[in-house]
Amino acid sequence: MPLLLFLLLLPPHGLWADSAASARESRQWRRTHERAIVVEYTKLLSLPNVAGPNVARNVADMRRNAELIRAMLERRRIQTQLLEVEGAPPVIYGERLQPGAKRTVIFYVHYDGQPVDGGKWFNRAPFQPALMSGPVEAGGQPVALHSSGPFNPEWRLYARSASDDKAPIIALTTALDAMDAAGIAPGSNLKFFLDGEEEAGSPHMREFLAKYKHLLAGDVWIFCDGPVHQSRRQQIVFGARGSTALDVTIFGPRSELHSGHYGNWAPNPAMQLARLLATMKDDDGKVLIKDFYSDTEPLSAVEKLALAAVPNIDEEIRKQFWLGRTEGNGRRLDELINLPALNIQGITSAGTGDLARNVIPAQATAAIGLRLVKGNHYRRIQDRVVDHIRLQGFHVVEQEPSEATLIQVPKVCLVRRRSGYNGVRAPMDLPIAKQVVAAVEQARGPVIRMPTLGGSLPIAPIYDALQTPVLIVPIANHDNNQHSHNENLRLQNLWDGIETMAALLGMP
Amino acid sequence: MPLLLFLLLLPPHGLWADSAASARESRQWRRTHERAIVVEYTKLLSLPNVAGPNVARNVADMRRNAELIRAMLERRRIQTQLLEVEGAPPVIYGERLQPGAKRTVIFYVHYDGQPVDGGKWFNRAPFQPALMSGPVEAGGQPVALHSSGPFNPEWRLYARSASDDKAPIIALTTALDAMDAAGIAPGSNLKFFLDGEEEAGSPHMREFLAKYKHLLAGDVWIFCDGPVHQSRRQQIVFGARGSTALDVTIFGPRSELHSGHYGNWAPNPAMQLARLLATMKDDDGKVLIKDFYSDTEPLSAVEKLALAAVPNIDEEIRKQFWLGRTEGNGRRLDELINLPALNIQGITSAGTGDLARNVIPAQATAAIGLRLVKGNHYRRIQDRVVDHIRLQGFHVVEQEPSEATLIQVPKVCLVRRRSGYNGVRAPMDLPIAKQVVAAVEQARGPVIRMPTLGGSLPIAPIYDALQTPVLIVPIANHDNNQHSHNENLRLQNLWDGIETMAALLGMP
Repeated sequence: MPLLLFLLLLPPHGLWADSAASARESRQWRRTHERAIVVEYTKLLSLPNVAGPNVARNVADMRRNAELIRAMLERRRIQTQLLEVEGAPPVIYGERLQPGAKRTVIFYVHYDGQPVDGGKWFNRAPFQPALMSGPVEAGGQPVALHSSGPFNPEWRLYARSASDDKAPIIALTTALDAMDAAGIAPGSNLKFFLDGEEEAGSPHMREFLAKYKHLLAGDVWIFCDGPVHQSRRQQIVFGARGSTALDVTIFGPRSELHSGHYGNWAPNPAMQLARLLATMKDDDGKVLIKDFYSDTEPLSAVEKLALAAVPNIDEEIRKQFWLGRTEGNGRRLDELINLPALNIQGITSAGTGDLARNVIPAQATAAIGLRLVKGNHYRRIQDRVVDHIRLQGFHVVEQEPSEATLIQVPKVCLVRRRSGYNGVRAPMDLPIAKQVVAAVEQARGPVIRMPTLGGSLPIAPIYDALQTPVLIVPIANHDNNQHSHNENLRLQNLWDGIETMAALLGMP
Repeated sequence: MPLLLFLLLLPPHGLWADSAASARESRQWRRTHERAIVVEYTKLLSLPNVAGPNVARNVADMRRNAELIRAMLERRRIQTQLLEVEGAPPVIYGERLQPGAKRTVIFYVHYDGQPVDGGKWFNRAPFQPALMSGPVEAGGQPVALHSSGPFNPEWRLYARSASDDKAPIIALTTALDAMDAAGIAPGSNLKFFLDGEEEAGSPHMREFLAKYKHLLAGDVWIFCDGPVHQSRRQQIVFGARGSTALDVTIFGPRSELHSGHYGNWAPNPAMQLARLLATMKDDDGKVLIKDFYSDTEPLSAVEKLALAAVPNIDEEIRKQFWLGRTEGNGRRLDELINLPALNIQGITSAGTGDLARNVIPAQATAAIGLRLVKGNHYRRIQDRVVDHIRLQGFHVVEQEPSEATLIQVPKVCLVRRRSGYNGVRAPMDLPIAKQVVAAVEQARGPVIRMPTLGGSLPIAPIYDALQTPVLIVPIANHDNNQHSHNENLRLQNLWDGIETMAALLGMP
């Protein structure tokens, strides 16, 4: 092709999109802008963003996050608007259309984070981002952000949401900065959907999708959430477990009783709860609730093959997590996450340690998390747990029981159902899936293809409302303490994430 | 006897001691001094006094209590000193010797209180005493302490330790005020022993008794602790359950793990703890630990007879406490407290409700309280629980396990033993016991004679060190929320308590 003709065919904003070139340019850019990237990121992480079942309390927090993120996107020539439905933090919607692009890619990120127990954080301040020379559990020490010298990629940035899930926001904006500076235009129309209540189970997702369906057409949704594989290799994931939860409360005396005066006589709700929970799983972690596994869709031959190619890191991470054993009758983690799960998220009843008092507690509550895979339905699996509780002799109520009920009924259990969504898996051989895999591999080398992410993402509502395929391209380190205290992002994962996002933006 | 001779025989400070007269005079005095009594008491209740395994943190609090109480006693011509042993809050010791008295009575009270969870109190302030028109659970409303008009005896004073166990301090000092005003001298030498760590299990009691044995000789110890009978009748109790506790911790991953990514694979410590606890008791509350009941000394014929005369209030208090059933195979509360008990005081593992996060908790802890009766030994019963935990397949450690242990051993359980003491029962036919019963009956009418208080008191160390009989004469209302939030004292119980104490002080 004569040079003149080639130049005439160039898109108005610069070079043709190309995943490899985009990733390469973003690396160069990042190397000369590391401090600025981290500084911009710490501003974002300084804003409290706790999601929760009681969303009202953090309305102002979430608005502050939304306004800052919106400004970050607008600086990258992304046109934004806040999508609103009653009772939910806004979804930040963004659009950067590319003249001539034949494909629309929608990036999904969430900007809310899990609740924090500040006292457990090493710095007692989940929203004061701290750059550390390594994992704090391994003795990582503070690093002055404004000191000179290059950034060590093993440094980690600590803050709630550092990995889950504000990291892709900074990776995407930085990748766009780099491509704009290099004159590389994205190869697709870009849309952005930033959820503000993912960690609360995205209870309004269906409502958002229905109300704003006209904005959300596209060829693929890319979920930028979750960790890379524990082997630190990039993975592309074709589905995610669904999620729901139940809070189960057993009632003892109206208020705590002196355990000396009434012990042996007043039933103890903590003991009753223990006895109830103990019926739910065996010692190897198998769920004993009737039909718990029965709807589960087994893995296809293609999925089994992909899974067999995933490096087995079980023994390594078992030691890393200080576990003396694993559950599942010897099966691998990557296989086990293709089954539904029942997990006690927490138990509270009166106090222990310095807060222990000589009482018979008034109540005992367990938060029971449920993970679902393709084939399971979150309502149905909740029902099965409730049926099981009934089978143990409890009278199940779904609202605070009355005095009369508690006095008349020997064993009362209050179940509070949380919202939820189902698990999904996209077929591995979709053409768009192959394009995404190819793009990321140009930036990051061979990727792991994983049928299911263990964690949950609100993908099912997207399938239901838009019938658009969803793929997950995570960037965080697996050892990020996600959902717990001391959440962190390893800098190398952020650097890699910038290149991964550039490769997707540059997908021709 | 000629009048002159009678007058010559009068003791130097006034009339001969007489329980009935003392009680009568104290009632008159109280009726005209109710506001002053309550005001003095609220000052005492305003001082935080939390006992705890970590005593160091509240050293200053306990000193402030000790100084105020000391001043209160000195105002009643009681000579005081603070007894000290390393690491313990001081015991306030007091003495008021009576020329010619042939008997020495030692009053035991404790001035420390159980830990507080301020957020659970109706006024969020356990150390801001609040006078209420009735139980807050039944809609009791604030009453202005300084308003005019008589005090309703059903009003209640809310504060930590209002009933347990600062009430006898104000009852004793008021009774002395009344007797002094009426010119009635006590019939005994009086000694006072005010413990500052009863709610922490009085871990230094033996040391105090050994170091200050020379001060503590006497004919009887009267423990002014615990509630009157649930029928609101005065009781005299001849023993108390012993007490000890264990904190049991099960380990999951080193730090909390994302329940999606690792659920089904990483063992859940909350579930393991539930499964362990569930093996300890059956659904009816019977302890399943081997030999748990085997050392228990059965009740004597005299004790059984006394017990049979106790009003049966089980059904009434079952409803009052909103219990749908009771444990113990149909046996009565008053009978069941003559057996050892195992009670879960609390369970903590990650969070529930608004604090629930989608995690596999890192640890789960249960505080297990143990109550002992005559014949049981607190160390031996701890050993039996520990043996039981081992039998469930756990490797038991008594110090924080190392990384290596956690990685190498499938199931690890950390047991932290608390200190403790044994249960005791005094024979009901001791002459001094009969005198005490007679004195109290002159003030309060027929009393209930109860073999064992369900609650625990550090009586065993007194038997061991001094061989002095111990009787318990409680004054608090049974529905005082002792040890829990919203602890309170019903004013009528304080009024009655003043008369009961006057009767004891006036015992001829």
